[in-house]
Amino acid sequence: MKRIGIADTTFARVDMARYATRALGAAGSGYRIVRRTVPGVKDLPVACRAMFLEDGADLCLALGMPGAAEYDRTCAHEASLGLLFTSVLEAKPIVECFVFEGEADGPAALERLARRRAEEHAANAWSMLFRPDDLRRHAGLGLRQGFPDAGPVRRTR
Amino acid sequence: MKRIGIADTTFARVDMARYATRALGAAGSGYRIVRRTVPGVKDLPVACRAMFLEDGADLCLALGMPGAAEYDRTCAHEASLGLLFTSVLEAKPIVECFVFEGEADGPAALERLARRRAEEHAANAWSMLFRPDDLRRHAGLGLRQGFPDAGPVRRTR
Amino acid sequence: MKRIGIADTTFARVDMARYATRALGAAGSGYRIVRRTVPGVKDLPVACRAMFLEDGADLCLALGMPGAAEYDRTCAHEASLGLLFTSVLEAKPIVECFVFEGEADGPAALERLARRRAEEHAANAWSMLFRPDDLRRHAGLGLRQGFPDAGPVRRTR
Amino acid sequence: MKRIGIADTTFARVDMARYATRALGAAGSGYRIVRRTVPGVKDLPVACRAMFLEDGADLCLALGMPGAAEYDRTCAHEASLGLLFTSVLEAKPIVECFVFEGEADGPAALERLARRRAEEHAANAWSMLFRPDDLRRHAGLGLRQGFPDAGPVRRTR
Amino acid sequence: MKRIGIADTTFARVDMARYATRALGAAGSGYRIVRRTVPGVKDLPVACRAMFLEDGADLCLALGMPGAAEYDRTCAHEASLGLLFTSVLEAKPIVECFVFEGEADGPAALERLARRRAEEHAANAWSMLFRPDDLRRHAGLGLRQGFPDAGPVRRTR
Repeated sequence: MKRIGIADTTFARVDMARYATRALGAAGSGYRIVRRTVPGVKDLPVACRAMFLEDGADLCLALGMPGAAEYDRTCAHEASLGLLFTSVLEAKPIVECFVFEGEADGPAALERLARRRAEEHAANAWSMLFRPDDLRRHAGLGLRQGFPDAGPVRRTR
Repeated sequence: MKRIGIADTTFARVDMARYATRALGAAGSGYRIVRRTVPGVKDLPVACRAMFLEDGADLCLALGMPGAAEYDRTCAHEASLGLLFTSVLEAKPIVECFVFEGEADGPAALERLARRRAEEHAANAWSMLFRPDDLRRHAGLGLRQGFPDAGPVRRTR
Repeated sequence: MKRIGIADTTFARVDMARYATRALGAAGSGYRIVRRTVPGVKDLPVACRAMFLEDGADLCLALGMPGAAEYDRTCAHEASLGLLFTSVLEAKPIVECFVFEGEADGPAALERLARRRAEEHAANAWSMLFRPDDLRRHAGLGLRQGFPDAGPVRRTR
Repeated sequence: MKRIGIADTTFARVDMARYATRALGAAGSGYRIVRRTVPGVKDLPVACRAMFLEDGADLCLALGMPGAAEYDRTCAHEASLGLLFTSVLEAKPIVECFVFEGEADGPAALERLARRRAEEHAANAWSMLFRPDDLRRHAGLGLRQGFPDAGPVRRTR
Repeated sequence: MKRIGIADTTFARVDMARYATRALGAAGSGYRIVRRTVPGVKDLPVACRAMFLEDGADLCLALGMPGAAEYDRTCAHEASLGLLFTSVLEAKPIVECFVFEGEADGPAALERLARRRAEEHAANAWSMLFRPDDLRRHAGLGLRQGFPDAGPVRRTR
């Protein structure tokens, strides 16, 4: 039985953890979820480290929704570096799933984007733990999360 | 009995530690405060690490007020990375509470913003230690500290 | 028998691992390949660390193809820092091979660039493990990967 | 008897260590100075680490004077991150005292600024070691080093 | 007998290691050189760490020549952070000697600049190991590597 840690924030404006949890369930079984909710994206790295150390997580999913301003981009950059540092330190994957408010036009599109991205990153997380060969079969195919796949270069000619 | 470390600066133009201390008291009990005041935001990371190692802190609150110039933003970015690195290294939360001078128009608004943000981050810090489920219940609800909550996307339609 | 780890992504739009694998074979023998495919470039650092720790890799080749937007450049920067940190931590080389979509005009040129760069970085990786003196003989000669060599300054006069 | 490490550079155009040393003497006693001079600001972090490890320093003062160009700002940013990383790693304070050439108009003003900033940071360093309560009493008072204090927000109304 | 590690790249367009080696010989004796040539500047940090760990280097000289484009500056910034991290981790100096293509007008000037900078950084490296007091005597004198010294502020009045 593997453990998947889900870290999310009260700052986000969509309950991405709900969508991620459902998508994990749809992807398969063999895991138990642990969860930590923190205020903002900069609190996610230590929450993931705590889930690795204290809750025995094998992989973490870090869900966040930074704002659209320049300062929010800086915060997201810092959070990303912290997540990278944590995953390397623990030698365990952290799947970062961030949605920037500025990526979508209006609340309905933002909700849809956040939902789809959370679902697709969650499916990736499940594959990383249980079916790494699925990822390998899709190497270089231009997959995207939340937006339509770009596809491989050859097909777009 | 938990220990909460408060690190603040002589650079800040508002005594945010006073507001944070009061808000912690209003939030609940079960903790003792340790405190270190340093010159500027870049001195906060090592002050937090010292409070974790020497004072037995379980969580730190890092209070700072960078200036409005580009150089101040760079300093704050460096300080944030240092705080992130420290919290991951110690596997204990550091709640960063920074107020940029440029965020508010005039001294009265700046004082009000600094006060409110310090209070709301302090309340979050208390919840992180004693009521993690409170945070979880607010996941994805668009909470903000110092400004009005953005709210969840669905409600803004 | 040395082990070369190849980490690549499903985000990339060209199967660079295929070209890298062939170029390694053309360069020489004495190695076995281990492979991990992850979603995006920010997942490469921990994949490399895992190949060092769990698969016994002596060197990793990190293949990625970030998009052309500013956010993609930020992601690539974060991934690069993570790869650097990982290689220093493990004291083993990670050969980063990134191709940015904006570097080439159109799909055919992008495919060509990705292929050539993957091949040339793979050849470098082989030399680093088996013929370090080959690299030394080319010190300061203005070699490039994917584009024509710039050549040493003296020859361009 | 505490030990204060002073790291400075041959790149700087003012002998800031001389001013810092005098200001330490004026602040009080109870310490011995160790000193390392390096070429530039990016050499300061490892010089500080060496003073912590080999010379038994309890705190380091890192003095530097980056140039005015964009590249110099990048170097200073890298040096600052290195100093932050070093202080957190050692859990001992490094007081960074940088003066940018562009901060002052003309050589006389630059000399004055560098002197005053070095003196005031040195006084802070002494307080951090011997009178931490002095800093605490000045929390939130808008102190500056090298320029006039900004003062607390309330007084500027 | 000390050991000086020289790390350089095949990307550089000038054989800076040759100039550095000569300048070390002119500076004095008491050392043996170890050498690693890698593809680009981002490969320098791990090469330095390997020379510290495997070759017993006491100090490393990292020679590189990034291109003139924005992306090259980003690579150099990442490499610099990696070098800083490595030197702090090992508590041993890494003298970074980078020449940017855009710093000089035309190939002859670029060759001259690269030569002079490599020589002057190599001389500094020798002093750091064998005559630290020489550096101390030049503290605050505005020394430069590759360009004429800026000199101390007082003399420019």
